[in-house]
Amino acid sequence: MSSRVGIRKHLPNRARKKGLAPGSLVYVGTSQKQAASHPPRITSMIFEGETPQEQEGYALPDILPLRPAPALTWINVEGLHNEALLAEFGEAFQLNGLLLEDILNTEQRPKAETLDTHTYIILKTFQFKAAQEEIATEQVSIVMGPHFVITFLEDADPQFDEVKNRLRLNSRRLRSLGVGYLTHMLLDTIIDSYFSVLEEVGERLETLEDSLSEAQPPNILQNLHRLKRELIFLRKNIWPVREILNGLQQADTEIITPAVHPYLRDLYDHTIQVMDTLESYRDLLSGLQDLYLSVLSYRMNDVMKVLTIMSSLFIPLTFIVGVYGMNFKVMPELNQPWGYPAVWMIMLLTATGMLAYFKRKRWI
Amino acid sequence: MSSRVGIRKHLPNRARKKGLAPGSLVYVGTSQKQAASHPPRITSMIFEGETPQEQEGYALPDILPLRPAPALTWINVEGLHNEALLAEFGEAFQLNGLLLEDILNTEQRPKAETLDTHTYIILKTFQFKAAQEEIATEQVSIVMGPHFVITFLEDADPQFDEVKNRLRLNSRRLRSLGVGYLTHMLLDTIIDSYFSVLEEVGERLETLEDSLSEAQPPNILQNLHRLKRELIFLRKNIWPVREILNGLQQADTEIITPAVHPYLRDLYDHTIQVMDTLESYRDLLSGLQDLYLSVLSYRMNDVMKVLTIMSSLFIPLTFIVGVYGMNFKVMPELNQPWGYPAVWMIMLLTATGMLAYFKRKRWI
Amino acid sequence: MSSRVGIRKHLPNRARKKGLAPGSLVYVGTSQKQAASHPPRITSMIFEGETPQEQEGYALPDILPLRPAPALTWINVEGLHNEALLAEFGEAFQLNGLLLEDILNTEQRPKAETLDTHTYIILKTFQFKAAQEEIATEQVSIVMGPHFVITFLEDADPQFDEVKNRLRLNSRRLRSLGVGYLTHMLLDTIIDSYFSVLEEVGERLETLEDSLSEAQPPNILQNLHRLKRELIFLRKNIWPVREILNGLQQADTEIITPAVHPYLRDLYDHTIQVMDTLESYRDLLSGLQDLYLSVLSYRMNDVMKVLTIMSSLFIPLTFIVGVYGMNFKVMPELNQPWGYPAVWMIMLLTATGMLAYFKRKRWI
Amino acid sequence: MSSRVGIRKHLPNRARKKGLAPGSLVYVGTSQKQAASHPPRITSMIFEGETPQEQEGYALPDILPLRPAPALTWINVEGLHNEALLAEFGEAFQLNGLLLEDILNTEQRPKAETLDTHTYIILKTFQFKAAQEEIATEQVSIVMGPHFVITFLEDADPQFDEVKNRLRLNSRRLRSLGVGYLTHMLLDTIIDSYFSVLEEVGERLETLEDSLSEAQPPNILQNLHRLKRELIFLRKNIWPVREILNGLQQADTEIITPAVHPYLRDLYDHTIQVMDTLESYRDLLSGLQDLYLSVLSYRMNDVMKVLTIMSSLFIPLTFIVGVYGMNFKVMPELNQPWGYPAVWMIMLLTATGMLAYFKRKRWI
Amino acid sequence: MSSRVGIRKHLPNRARKKGLAPGSLVYVGTSQKQAASHPPRITSMIFEGETPQEQEGYALPDILPLRPAPALTWINVEGLHNEALLAEFGEAFQLNGLLLEDILNTEQRPKAETLDTHTYIILKTFQFKAAQEEIATEQVSIVMGPHFVITFLEDADPQFDEVKNRLRLNSRRLRSLGVGYLTHMLLDTIIDSYFSVLEEVGERLETLEDSLSEAQPPNILQNLHRLKRELIFLRKNIWPVREILNGLQQADTEIITPAVHPYLRDLYDHTIQVMDTLESYRDLLSGLQDLYLSVLSYRMNDVMKVLTIMSSLFIPLTFIVGVYGMNFKVMPELNQPWGYPAVWMIMLLTATGMLAYFKRKRWI
Repeated sequence: MSSRVGIRKHLPNRARKKGLAPGSLVYVGTSQKQAASHPPRITSMIFEGETPQEQEGYALPDILPLRPAPALTWINVEGLHNEALLAEFGEAFQLNGLLLEDILNTEQRPKAETLDTHTYIILKTFQFKAAQEEIATEQVSIVMGPHFVITFLEDADPQFDEVKNRLRLNSRRLRSLGVGYLTHMLLDTIIDSYFSVLEEVGERLETLEDSLSEAQPPNILQNLHRLKRELIFLRKNIWPVREILNGLQQADTEIITPAVHPYLRDLYDHTIQVMDTLESYRDLLSGLQDLYLSVLSYRMNDVMKVLTIMSSLFIPLTFIVGVYGMNFKVMPELNQPWGYPAVWMIMLLTATGMLAYFKRKRWI
Repeated sequence: MSSRVGIRKHLPNRARKKGLAPGSLVYVGTSQKQAASHPPRITSMIFEGETPQEQEGYALPDILPLRPAPALTWINVEGLHNEALLAEFGEAFQLNGLLLEDILNTEQRPKAETLDTHTYIILKTFQFKAAQEEIATEQVSIVMGPHFVITFLEDADPQFDEVKNRLRLNSRRLRSLGVGYLTHMLLDTIIDSYFSVLEEVGERLETLEDSLSEAQPPNILQNLHRLKRELIFLRKNIWPVREILNGLQQADTEIITPAVHPYLRDLYDHTIQVMDTLESYRDLLSGLQDLYLSVLSYRMNDVMKVLTIMSSLFIPLTFIVGVYGMNFKVMPELNQPWGYPAVWMIMLLTATGMLAYFKRKRWI
Repeated sequence: MSSRVGIRKHLPNRARKKGLAPGSLVYVGTSQKQAASHPPRITSMIFEGETPQEQEGYALPDILPLRPAPALTWINVEGLHNEALLAEFGEAFQLNGLLLEDILNTEQRPKAETLDTHTYIILKTFQFKAAQEEIATEQVSIVMGPHFVITFLEDADPQFDEVKNRLRLNSRRLRSLGVGYLTHMLLDTIIDSYFSVLEEVGERLETLEDSLSEAQPPNILQNLHRLKRELIFLRKNIWPVREILNGLQQADTEIITPAVHPYLRDLYDHTIQVMDTLESYRDLLSGLQDLYLSVLSYRMNDVMKVLTIMSSLFIPLTFIVGVYGMNFKVMPELNQPWGYPAVWMIMLLTATGMLAYFKRKRWI
Repeated sequence: MSSRVGIRKHLPNRARKKGLAPGSLVYVGTSQKQAASHPPRITSMIFEGETPQEQEGYALPDILPLRPAPALTWINVEGLHNEALLAEFGEAFQLNGLLLEDILNTEQRPKAETLDTHTYIILKTFQFKAAQEEIATEQVSIVMGPHFVITFLEDADPQFDEVKNRLRLNSRRLRSLGVGYLTHMLLDTIIDSYFSVLEEVGERLETLEDSLSEAQPPNILQNLHRLKRELIFLRKNIWPVREILNGLQQADTEIITPAVHPYLRDLYDHTIQVMDTLESYRDLLSGLQDLYLSVLSYRMNDVMKVLTIMSSLFIPLTFIVGVYGMNFKVMPELNQPWGYPAVWMIMLLTATGMLAYFKRKRWI
Repeated sequence: MSSRVGIRKHLPNRARKKGLAPGSLVYVGTSQKQAASHPPRITSMIFEGETPQEQEGYALPDILPLRPAPALTWINVEGLHNEALLAEFGEAFQLNGLLLEDILNTEQRPKAETLDTHTYIILKTFQFKAAQEEIATEQVSIVMGPHFVITFLEDADPQFDEVKNRLRLNSRRLRSLGVGYLTHMLLDTIIDSYFSVLEEVGERLETLEDSLSEAQPPNILQNLHRLKRELIFLRKNIWPVREILNGLQQADTEIITPAVHPYLRDLYDHTIQVMDTLESYRDLLSGLQDLYLSVLSYRMNDVMKVLTIMSSLFIPLTFIVGVYGMNFKVMPELNQPWGYPAVWMIMLLTATGMLAYFKRKRWI
């Protein structure tokens, strides 16, 4: 189940776990209730001959036992809420308790760890939901064993289906390069999802930039802040992926053969590119913020100038006409026939003087 | 005794210590007087058979002598103000003088040190006190010997009681993994307290963010500043924990067995996650500050526009009506029957012109 | 084909690649259609005797087979859109699939990689287009084999023509130093293009700085923001070049002989100088931004002072004349002959008092 | 002689030295003249038996010759202006010329250096002078030889007198641990002076924070800036101390025995704590600055709102009454008996409308 | 020839070099024409016996051949524009082509390089020109051979004359320590010029700080920006010197003997001190900028308050008097004898109320 990027999203929801012994299996994602309607779906692909053989079910025995060693099996579990199922997996594949705990904790920081018999990677996929204008995130755990790969998803993921389709058409290279190559394919798909999300973010940045030149940009502040929050969130979740890939390249496990290394280096380059883009976006965003504040200041200046010019022009004139609106018995000017035109003359001179002053100050 | 997060809190209170030889034992926390009413309470748990044996007292002999080596003893001291008691502990367990000094100095920076016969860790627990809306902090010192763990608390701590309860129910894994595992359990509890406090901080951040869209957010500045101060405080006290855990993993003492390493790595991951969250919160907080300043600027702009529109609209009109309020004998317009409607006409035109100008400037 | 620096430019355009197997050759630059009119042009220079021999064509066989080992061949391909051609190259020179993919991906991050038989470098040239006032960028890939260098350009590049002219006149040093020296010449040309672009940026920075002292600088905000965006873009593309040159110096391939090392060190120094200049420009730009905001604030202050002085001077006077414009039957002052001059006296005193106050406040 | 923290303080006063050969001894602190009245005072403490033997004088022979090796001698020189005296010291104890130069240059950056026969440390003590509200600083040089320690102060220092008092009472540990322990005692005293100064700074920060909530905080800007300047100054002088202590721990001289290492590690921890506190203060200070600017903006907003409400409310009304103050012959409304109440009615409606608008905008 | 610090100064002027083969000798400083009137002057000092022997001329043969090995020769060339002369030097002393190119490129980044037979250092001297209020910069190249040092200056430099004078008086130490010591003397002179320039900058910073408290500081913005630009410029040119000195200390050439190492370490310490001071100045400058912006905000607040008080006080009163200036036939109040005093009473009450409100708001 995907989840929105709010502030609290930055904090792992560990309330349910507090007070439990370390190693207890508790799913911290969507609530149990909501999950009940979605029983976890398990699919497997066995790569032995030309065409991969596929199995599907809702329980572990449906896909067991695995084919012996030269065959490579990929098991994909969609739905994490069934803690009992996970425990069965743990037993069947001798997975460490802390690993299972990490898989269930869907607010896990991306990480990779190499244990005795298997290596596991936990990371996030992102998806931009246009309708809600928000980034949905899902946790993917990849467990690599000697001749199998198990992937645990929070929910069905169309990107993984694409990988399956590709493998149905052609799995020759996979059969020759083994577990490491399958992992590379999955990671490649996931890192591609980072590019898509960044593309969305970049588009929104550009829209914001364009809207800054409008007089009354709608909700620009909220949008800037939101983008910033999303960049912080993405950064926090993508940054560790670099380390993970770096670690995988240097790991001396039998699972990842040297033939896979160039592919991993390629992934590493992609991640660096994602990070570079993220950093550029951060710089661009902060540039936009500065620009927006400058625009506000500039406009305020503009508004103030109009006010000052209008006030400074008419306030003295209003005073002058006020003088001759007084009702004193003895006001000699009032009785002169030239009084009225003279006042107009004075007022015109005053106004002209003010305007010349503003001209000199370059306000008009 | 817990203490509030004020600015001076960032500085160790070393006034009482000035002018003393290095190594003198002085408790720098709550004053002696206040402490007198709370005699320090000592409890011990001995893990030998199925059920742990517990002892409790107010003096060291109550819990001595320790059981011989296969048995593991946990001694918990609640209350640090009794310097004499600590000196007794020092003698009974051959604790170094500088260590005792560090334990008493409740404003010690989190640290770990490995001495000849024991390793000790000093760190902080945090608790969010909803009533006073503040973060209370307490120092915890954990001394690990070959078959005992001594913990020194400033005051009774419910989190440690939970650990005890858990151990009463099941201490099998503890008995097999030894001192290192007990330390892991205690550290796990403490690091969980960091998550709780961060959750509170996150909630307050979100509340602040929501309140920014209100017209007159109450005390937003004070709240932002307070949160910032608290984040600085948390950061200062949590950051060194990372180093500590890193050091524990690499330490080659006999106390921490390799079987405990995965547990420590897990704790290390949690601390990294805490740090990441703290950094994200800092970024979010500074984002909120920028947002708030922009909101202020934006509203000022709004206010200025209203002022400028009203003034610029009516000041010229007031001038015009002022002109015909003058009392000159000779003002030909005044005697014309069309004078009054003509003035209205002029005024309407002026106003319309101004409004058109504002429209063009997109102020209205 | 060159491309403009927009925000989305920061993101590699990988949309066309999504869902393809890793290693598929897809050109992500200009569209196929546009490219069809520009068939890729292939030129070769063979350095064997005094004068280099040149060949030119639109297909690979036109320039094959290469001369045997002591002869050095430089093959230059202008135009990347023909994916089939690139695949032929891959086959003829045994180029790795991932390399070919990198060459075609014109939004590749600058990188260098050493494979078994060849080393390749991918980087960008920049060109300031005065007409459009923008920075155009093009990707250059340099593949070094044992006795050949192949360069792939997106489009014909006058800088490379200059290199050719230079080699036509004198290729002695090239024949003695080999592949590494040719690479150095090409990189030197490319890094010189960085200096030219920076010179343009510096000139624009200086123009902006000068225009700040004008009263109504035109579009200063937009220009500042644009420069910032360009600096971010340049930085992102030039920064990795440092690493590349560093790597080349330390690489222990047979292609780059020790005699070339001083030349590479020289290039490295130039890149450091480019980076230093970029960083200085960033600092200067952010200084200009601060200056601009201060100038705005300062001017606002000025405007406000004029408004305040005018208003504070005349508003009380207007009130006074208003008082004696009232029509009460009984207003004793109105009937006194000294009434009118007395009011003038009071008004003069009021105005003088206000002016003295402003003088004391140093507003005038 | 102590000196104030001004901007130029950040720069070593090397004017007097310019044009001299390197290694010339010139005292750059207080002028020669001023110093003449204060002849440098030399004291020595010899630690051999239970009670230390003390000597005092104004010339080097007063305290020579030193006792042979098992005895440990501490020579303290108060006053640096006598360059001849220092040269004598240099000869008597075979001190390097550059060392002597460093000792005299009272604007030396804190440093430690290990030469063939002795190690020397140069650092600063700080003292907060409440009367002048400023931080006074003094340079201390500690030269460690095989069985002597020479300390050079700019002036008499009460902190060193305390160390002496402590040693008069009990010097057993010193006699067993030697030169390294004496150095530790002196450094401990100096680092304690950092805590005192930080405590003062912290108190002033808190006072500033409290005063921010007042309406007219007195000199808040000047105070913030001053504190900032002082933090920059402290940072510059304390930061290198960390390196010094680190270096001392790793130095493999015979002067600092392994038994002293825990004491040095303790000092190192204290310095880290000082640095942490300094960094926190910097963050808090910059937080206060932001807060202050926000407070200013917020208040400006408040002021503007009052102005806008008052103006927008009365300017239209003043226009209306102006209309009926015109003296046109033909103004039908004026002759109607309902004219006057009708105008009041219109004005009330206008005012109510404005107020409703402000209410809706949440300005009132 | 010295040059001003403008923005473009940050960029090496490489326009003249574009399109030339690497290694071509082109002087990029003052134009050829200007230089023609100043033929380069060559002086040499030979240190063999007590007094150095000096020679002077305008061509290389004037000072050749060098004395054999135990004698040490320092050749100083003032004026770089004669490219032919430099080429002669290159031939006579077997200097590398890239080195000569670096010497001529007067916009070279400070660097040091060790070649087979000689080591060279390129760096900048700075001089504050009080008349033009700007920092002049000149490039100095120092080439160290086995028993000679050649220095290339852009123009005659009084600092080098001082070094000569010092050597005329006493060259004993130089004769014993050799080439390394002469280099140290020259570098010491150059680094002293950094201190002088920083002292000037510090003085200007302090002047700016003092002028901030004045009401109308003249050109404070321009001055702040100018200082910032100069600090960026200094930083860029001084920072690499640290590396250079570090490199010299670690270089294992026969030219720099271990006896010179303490002198180099001393220079290194000075450079660190220069860097520290530069960084402090940057911090202080940015503090001044913040202070200035706060001062502007604070004053704006002040101005606004006066405006608001005056307007809010008189605008309602002006409305009231306007009411009774209306000419309605039926206005009962006008005919009452108490009308006029009653209006005064109402106005006094209104004004008092406003003032009380402002008092409560603490605006007055």
